Amino acid sequence: MKHSLIVFAAVLFTAQAHGADPLPSWNATGPKQAIVQFVEKVTRKGSPQFVPEAERIATFDNDGTLWAEQPLYFQLFFAIDRVKAGAAAHPEWKTQEPFASVLKGDMQGMAASGEKGIAQLIMATHAGMTSDEFAKIVSDWVGTAKHPKSGKPFTSMVYQPMLELLTYLRANGFKTYIVSGGGIEFMRPWTQKVYGIPPEQVIGSSGGLKYELRGGKPVLVKLPELVHMDDKEGKPIGIQRHIGRRPIAAFGNSDGDLQMLEWTCSGEGARLCLFVHHTDAGREWAYDRQSHIGKLDKGLDAAKANGWSVVSMKDDWKAIYPK
Amino acid sequence: MKHSLIVFAAVLFTAQAHGADPLPSWNATGPKQAIVQFVEKVTRKGSPQFVPEAERIATFDNDGTLWAEQPLYFQLFFAIDRVKAGAAAHPEWKTQEPFASVLKGDMQGMAASGEKGIAQLIMATHAGMTSDEFAKIVSDWVGTAKHPKSGKPFTSMVYQPMLELLTYLRANGFKTYIVSGGGIEFMRPWTQKVYGIPPEQVIGSSGGLKYELRGGKPVLVKLPELVHMDDKEGKPIGIQRHIGRRPIAAFGNSDGDLQMLEWTCSGEGARLCLFVHHTDAGREWAYDRQSHIGKLDKGLDAAKANGWSVVSMKDDWKAIYPK
Repeated sequence: MKHSLIVFAAVLFTAQAHGADPLPSWNATGPKQAIVQFVEKVTRKGSPQFVPEAERIATFDNDGTLWAEQPLYFQLFFAIDRVKAGAAAHPEWKTQEPFASVLKGDMQGMAASGEKGIAQLIMATHAGMTSDEFAKIVSDWVGTAKHPKSGKPFTSMVYQPMLELLTYLRANGFKTYIVSGGGIEFMRPWTQKVYGIPPEQVIGSSGGLKYELRGGKPVLVKLPELVHMDDKEGKPIGIQRHIGRRPIAAFGNSDGDLQMLEWTCSGEGARLCLFVHHTDAGREWAYDRQSHIGKLDKGLDAAKANGWSVVSMKDDWKAIYPK
Repeated sequence: MKHSLIVFAAVLFTAQAHGADPLPSWNATGPKQAIVQFVEKVTRKGSPQFVPEAERIATFDNDGTLWAEQPLYFQLFFAIDRVKAGAAAHPEWKTQEPFASVLKGDMQGMAASGEKGIAQLIMATHAGMTSDEFAKIVSDWVGTAKHPKSGKPFTSMVYQPMLELLTYLRANGFKTYIVSGGGIEFMRPWTQKVYGIPPEQVIGSSGGLKYELRGGKPVLVKLPELVHMDDKEGKPIGIQRHIGRRPIAAFGNSDGDLQMLEWTCSGEGARLCLFVHHTDAGREWAYDRQSHIGKLDKGLDAAKANGWSVVSMKDDWKAIYPK
């Protein structure tokens, strides 16, 4: 009898712990408390800060917030692989920058081409095919490519605590969106599977599209032009265009997310704004104010001034990647 | 006893009829049959044409498909009212076309300014304020303005059979979207209330936005420039940008919807494409191949060639507007 009581107590404890802690990979530090308190405030009936379900919009940056972004944005690894795959059909790339550097594996040379060179790489590898063809190319790449440092598939380098956060918010009636500087059509083929976020809840930088009939069948052809840059001021603009209402929670990791957090947390009522701060050189990477990728400088100051949450990956997260 | 049995039978009949007929304002003619058969095909488990809920996307044009569009697009009546409201602050409008004609109530003169003039009207009345301010202006107008012919609020001139269709599709797991040539920010303030369609499921023509801080508070300012024309080829492009997947059902009423229907019905599996044909001069308006507004010419031919449904408002709809 005594034994079975102990077993029962243990089961009960486990069940309670399971039910009570939707964020098991988060330490019980400030950011976790801020998240849980915010969710309780906006979902508890009778709460003065209750928010109807339809208005529970949460937006997440992707690179550096939901998955890693070092030593290069993962979409750039994709572009590099596409340049290699397309080299035979483009003999001119052997001598033309930034393609020549990419083909030689000279990352310094590629970087030397600057933003213009990066844009050329993206245009050359993200346009000229139909949107359906591009989705297949991305799906194939995501299913096979490996990160040069970790050797893991890129989609395994997503942050376990953020996956728990997405699930927790959705379980509380939130609609979760990605709002990323990355390409909208680069993300959509895999966000449902990896994050549980359907294509219509993915906002990103987008290129031109042309509708045409090919052999009597309509297709959408991707054009080598940028029609929306979903970064900095572009994030609130992308949110307004796609969602048409202001989020009540926003999550980012860099100055590119600052305006999204400003826009979100300057609305009335309960709001949650949070930066993921990359402080863990051991388990991930450590970078902030001086970084070329994912620079977090003004954002850190704004977080302090506005009382936004800042997650220290080293101190606030028990795990980084899923097991 | 006999009496109560009759009452019971009557109640039962009513309940059954209610349960069995989700489209009571539709006559039992071809279009209704096509709709019901399509919905059963894609929702019945085990059906070879079953479509998972997440992929049940249905897109609806607005002007002439969900609400009336004669004698002018309702958004133009809004623009005209805004020109009148702004005349005192714009003395130059007294002599400058198309504003001068609008202020004199000379619709012929306004029409003579052509597409360029209409664009000028829209830009002058839809830009220069913040998106929040514009939403309030639209809400106020929609709550008070009356149609010049019917004397009814514009939002009462929605089609009862289409309201039933929206509800029926949503009850069957569809996500219903508006995909309209009308302004995205002109529709969003009222589509939830009128159609049950939330702002994030409204796609339309959109103008530029500028993010700026005013007195330390971020705002989105509407710019006098068009960044997406959501008409003809622009509809599949708008769908791809906002939704990122192809609809399985599409509803329109004019050649401006032709590409949306082509795009939708050229996908694999069960598809439903339907044109609303304005054939009812008594209860609404009758127009098609020659009309300046809502011209349906190539669309009628395409519907015939592709076996798409065509609703004759006169023959297929029991009611036009809600009671």
